[in-house]
Amino acid sequence: MLVRLLYASRAAVPVTQQIIESIMQQSRTHNPAMGITGVLCHGGDVFMQALEGGREAVNTLYVKIVRDTRHRDVMLLHYAEVPERHFAGWTMGQVNLAKVNTSLLLKYSDRPVLDPFSVSGRASLALLEELTATAQIICRAG
Amino acid sequence: MLVRLLYASRAAVPVTQQIIESIMQQSRTHNPAMGITGVLCHGGDVFMQALEGGREAVNTLYVKIVRDTRHRDVMLLHYAEVPERHFAGWTMGQVNLAKVNTSLLLKYSDRPVLDPFSVSGRASLALLEELTATAQIICRAG
Amino acid sequence: MLVRLLYASRAAVPVTQQIIESIMQQSRTHNPAMGITGVLCHGGDVFMQALEGGREAVNTLYVKIVRDTRHRDVMLLHYAEVPERHFAGWTMGQVNLAKVNTSLLLKYSDRPVLDPFSVSGRASLALLEELTATAQIICRAG
Amino acid sequence: MLVRLLYASRAAVPVTQQIIESIMQQSRTHNPAMGITGVLCHGGDVFMQALEGGREAVNTLYVKIVRDTRHRDVMLLHYAEVPERHFAGWTMGQVNLAKVNTSLLLKYSDRPVLDPFSVSGRASLALLEELTATAQIICRAG
Amino acid sequence: MLVRLLYASRAAVPVTQQIIESIMQQSRTHNPAMGITGVLCHGGDVFMQALEGGREAVNTLYVKIVRDTRHRDVMLLHYAEVPERHFAGWTMGQVNLAKVNTSLLLKYSDRPVLDPFSVSGRASLALLEELTATAQIICRAG
Amino acid sequence: MLVRLLYASRAAVPVTQQIIESIMQQSRTHNPAMGITGVLCHGGDVFMQALEGGREAVNTLYVKIVRDTRHRDVMLLHYAEVPERHFAGWTMGQVNLAKVNTSLLLKYSDRPVLDPFSVSGRASLALLEELTATAQIICRAG
Amino acid sequence: MLVRLLYASRAAVPVTQQIIESIMQQSRTHNPAMGITGVLCHGGDVFMQALEGGREAVNTLYVKIVRDTRHRDVMLLHYAEVPERHFAGWTMGQVNLAKVNTSLLLKYSDRPVLDPFSVSGRASLALLEELTATAQIICRAG
Amino acid sequence: MLVRLLYASRAAVPVTQQIIESIMQQSRTHNPAMGITGVLCHGGDVFMQALEGGREAVNTLYVKIVRDTRHRDVMLLHYAEVPERHFAGWTMGQVNLAKVNTSLLLKYSDRPVLDPFSVSGRASLALLEELTATAQIICRAG
Amino acid sequence: MLVRLLYASRAAVPVTQQIIESIMQQSRTHNPAMGITGVLCHGGDVFMQALEGGREAVNTLYVKIVRDTRHRDVMLLHYAEVPERHFAGWTMGQVNLAKVNTSLLLKYSDRPVLDPFSVSGRASLALLEELTATAQIICRAG
Amino acid sequence: MLVRLLYASRAAVPVTQQIIESIMQQSRTHNPAMGITGVLCHGGDVFMQALEGGREAVNTLYVKIVRDTRHRDVMLLHYAEVPERHFAGWTMGQVNLAKVNTSLLLKYSDRPVLDPFSVSGRASLALLEELTATAQIICRAG
Repeated sequence: MLVRLLYASRAAVPVTQQIIESIMQQSRTHNPAMGITGVLCHGGDVFMQALEGGREAVNTLYVKIVRDTRHRDVMLLHYAEVPERHFAGWTMGQVNLAKVNTSLLLKYSDRPVLDPFSVSGRASLALLEELTATAQIICRAG
Repeated sequence: MLVRLLYASRAAVPVTQQIIESIMQQSRTHNPAMGITGVLCHGGDVFMQALEGGREAVNTLYVKIVRDTRHRDVMLLHYAEVPERHFAGWTMGQVNLAKVNTSLLLKYSDRPVLDPFSVSGRASLALLEELTATAQIICRAG
Repeated sequence: MLVRLLYASRAAVPVTQQIIESIMQQSRTHNPAMGITGVLCHGGDVFMQALEGGREAVNTLYVKIVRDTRHRDVMLLHYAEVPERHFAGWTMGQVNLAKVNTSLLLKYSDRPVLDPFSVSGRASLALLEELTATAQIICRAG
Repeated sequence: MLVRLLYASRAAVPVTQQIIESIMQQSRTHNPAMGITGVLCHGGDVFMQALEGGREAVNTLYVKIVRDTRHRDVMLLHYAEVPERHFAGWTMGQVNLAKVNTSLLLKYSDRPVLDPFSVSGRASLALLEELTATAQIICRAG
Repeated sequence: MLVRLLYASRAAVPVTQQIIESIMQQSRTHNPAMGITGVLCHGGDVFMQALEGGREAVNTLYVKIVRDTRHRDVMLLHYAEVPERHFAGWTMGQVNLAKVNTSLLLKYSDRPVLDPFSVSGRASLALLEELTATAQIICRAG
Repeated sequence: MLVRLLYASRAAVPVTQQIIESIMQQSRTHNPAMGITGVLCHGGDVFMQALEGGREAVNTLYVKIVRDTRHRDVMLLHYAEVPERHFAGWTMGQVNLAKVNTSLLLKYSDRPVLDPFSVSGRASLALLEELTATAQIICRAG
Repeated sequence: MLVRLLYASRAAVPVTQQIIESIMQQSRTHNPAMGITGVLCHGGDVFMQALEGGREAVNTLYVKIVRDTRHRDVMLLHYAEVPERHFAGWTMGQVNLAKVNTSLLLKYSDRPVLDPFSVSGRASLALLEELTATAQIICRAG
Repeated sequence: MLVRLLYASRAAVPVTQQIIESIMQQSRTHNPAMGITGVLCHGGDVFMQALEGGREAVNTLYVKIVRDTRHRDVMLLHYAEVPERHFAGWTMGQVNLAKVNTSLLLKYSDRPVLDPFSVSGRASLALLEELTATAQIICRAG
Repeated sequence: MLVRLLYASRAAVPVTQQIIESIMQQSRTHNPAMGITGVLCHGGDVFMQALEGGREAVNTLYVKIVRDTRHRDVMLLHYAEVPERHFAGWTMGQVNLAKVNTSLLLKYSDRPVLDPFSVSGRASLALLEELTATAQIICRAG
Repeated sequence: MLVRLLYASRAAVPVTQQIIESIMQQSRTHNPAMGITGVLCHGGDVFMQALEGGREAVNTLYVKIVRDTRHRDVMLLHYAEVPERHFAGWTMGQVNLAKVNTSLLLKYSDRPVLDPFSVSGRASLALLEELTATAQIICRAG
């Protein structure tokens, strides 16, 4: 049973390029064995991550994230059993919202910043899908 | 929560190019901070304006418009909570209906003039969307 | 409130090119002021005309047509309040069915002639829409 | 081919009980032979009448009504080919709106009077159907 | 053209029974002439009011409300052109939410209080419709 | 924004009546202040719980549950933003599946036991809704 | 493969009670062996018959009817492969339209007579279904 | 009223090219006057023919076919009142299935032969529509 | 994952009451442990059986049935993953079609016998569902 | 009646290229005479095969497969009566999943391997359809 899970969190410490690198590195190392794919967005101290994979694997990873004290304010935005993945091609794609066009952020949100905590999960998912469709996801080699 | 609001009004004083400039100038100055986008149409002494943004911001602005005595006959045409903006790309786009093709106005109206007071809000919104789709919205730099 | 009205009639006297010219001339003279647009088809002594415009204007014109004794057998085929016009571009377009492909007439009718009296209004409207879509409406200058 | 036609008109002369009687009498005399059924509403000097029957019969009657100079402002409200009649049981039912509950009129209209000229045909038809459903149609014997 | 408008506001001064009486009295005096019907809910210092009637009449009244300085934070919750009224039977019905069952408030809201400012307009309208359906609207004689 | 969350977990220690009492007691103490309602099922060492309330409150509680080491194998079954609650009437209803009819369990599952880990979230939610509809939820006073 | 076939015909000779008896007698004798069920209506010299059964059996019977010179103007009204019969309970039910209420005939037709030749097959089938639903089908023993 | 009728039959005598020619010649001679269009398929001794036109004309022709003893096993496959023709362009198109690709026949059938007697009318119609769409209908001049 | 499987077969030897008893006995003995429920119909030498349960269990049982040489002509009629069982209440219900009303069999079939080999699986399933709904399933104790 | 059947099985002995060749050879020899088309996927020791054809032919073949002891764990994944084939062009197409892109397998599955035993039949069918659409089916000549 495949599921898609989208959550947001706030970093407990200031986000540096090094932290992002380390998260991406972990994903590239552990996700393939768990059959997990997805995308990670970050903007300011806010993270939004989509995880896809078997129900058990995704829940195991989500429990790990929730228990990881570097995350604050972990909030589920969307969760569904799905017939197929949307992000099958990325071990963990990456979007730096600082480089995304302002009007794309405005399209789904009050203000031109990433604030999944104040908009519906549907809007956050739509933003992510538009980012994918417009090829704004990067996937640097480890 | 994003909303879209469309209203019409009549100018209490004759509309000059200077008045339009001043309205557009105010929009360009204040709207970005409030996260508001939209389009303003005018034809004769009639204004029709679409506002998009957070529910609170749009209502705050609409209250200001209603209380502004330069507007007469302020009439809501359409109001809805929306999953995404249609005018995310314009701080405040502008349409001078004097320059729009007559048969486009006729398409949604009895007569080839802007008269949102006599047609349904749905028709007015459709007119605005067709103007957007056919790229008749201009956005001059401040 | 925009409406679309489609009716058929039979000419009380033989139809000459001059009569058609005169009808078209009248339409071009009076319709713009009433905000009426539409299309006139004729084939043999049968007329079929679509009228679009404000509900009051279209009904005023239809009453005039019904009371005009040069029309016999006036029959409503279709009437509806519509969100937008289909013939916004024609003061009064014109189709001479003598010049239309036989299989197009057959497509919506028992026989390859214009006989709106024996087919449903839906079929007559579909024929008119296909004529429009395939650019068989002419609009000669007055 | 069955059709349903709904129109409104204003009486050219003051409406008396005698006029209503005479209209009803004519309907009871002529409609059965033409296979026409329907309902007549009146309120003040406004008439609203639904006619059902064969397309030709209904149009023949409507032409007669339009040409009858005792009617002013004849306006079509609704016209459609229908699979079955709604008023098969009345040669010509009758509703005196002066006796109808105010809030029923308000339900479909701005004001508690019969004013089909200012509301959509859909609302007028809905009013008539609610009157039928709540058994407010009377049918006095000739 | 009928419209339904739902808005919320906060009272600029503490709400007393006398204020409610006075609002209700005004509604009963002025609304019938304007063809306006509706329902007023209040809970704490929050008001939520549904207004139904002709588009022009409802907008005229809403402009008056927005300009009335006893209202703060006036916020549109829902606005739509409607084929029929939901509150045709009330000049202005009244709901005192202090007397409404807690679990009914919880059904559409985070907390068991009237807080239309934090929930979607759809939820507020659903609450109002459930109150109507369960006959919790009172309409005391003037 | 209201959400509904359904999860399953396995108890890390054998479940006694006392543990159930303690969970129910905590719910009754803390949930009202957080505006949370819901239902708790248990069968063997498996728990399945539905939580409803504001998005933030429900996520705060779910994070607490995930971090509580008395739960093992915490697995999300269903999560959605909802227009209204299904369990508005229960601070925390309770179902002891040992007392539920076998064929009701079989209806949504391979075997007549509570095993949300092997069936889709949709089936688990349907089971819960059927339990509610057939009044098998008890709510003992604290 | 079950089919339902509805046809009309005119009798080549005046219809007497004896002819009806003979048709019914034949149906009762031959149809059970062929697995055919249905209903026969007659009014004046017009017959309308619904046949249900296996595709081959129904077609074999229909060929026999078409070739039978006592039928004139045999006309198909409706034919469809169906998942289940509507007339499984009648070897051949019978309706004498002379005994049916006039307004039931008017409901689906221009005039209060059985005239399947001038109405759509859908209307004829609807009439038959209403006759069945209102228990106007008789089935006399042979 | 336009109808489309699809039937199959078996030839009572071996089919020669001359017989096909003669059928096609008759169609080209008689159909235009009756307003009938269509397509004839043959494969082995099986014929499948689609007829379109006025309800009366199509039934008159079908009665003639059923009574023609050169046809055996005449079986209706599909019959419907239609808003428009599919074969308006052919007096009588022709398909020799011996020249059609095997996998096209297999697509709608158990075996790669024309056997409308064993498949549903829907499949036969779909085959015919695919033949039309892929331009495998020929129409040789008489 | 729950599935529903419907198949038909013919008995390789004449069916006696004893054989039925033995099949029912086996079902009652083995099915509960496998979580399988269902219904068995028999008429003449034809069996039709619906099986519900986990996908693996149902397939294991079906393989056993196919390999059992007492069954001839085993034919799948319907197979689907289902959100819930229809026969959760029967370890193995039983229908003796010899005792079922003839017109119920005719409703879904050419002839009044159980012949799932000649009708679509949908019809067979509909028959079974109607038998269930009309309480014609018996379940004798072992 | 056409059906489509999808099943999975595990090979009872290690799969060699020779075994695949032999299966394909048998299909090419026997299927055309039975009117069967389809596709065979294999990955590791898992087979997944789609069969299309007449209901009887497909069931006869499936019984043969189930009784063939070289197959273990034969499991139905999908079965439906269909209006047309999807694989009409292949006597038996072949997919070697070892040569298929990993992310295509991941799209419908927890892990990048062929494991129809753990995913829904719908997902397996979707995978097969995507393989067809992206031309990854090969069909080598015998």
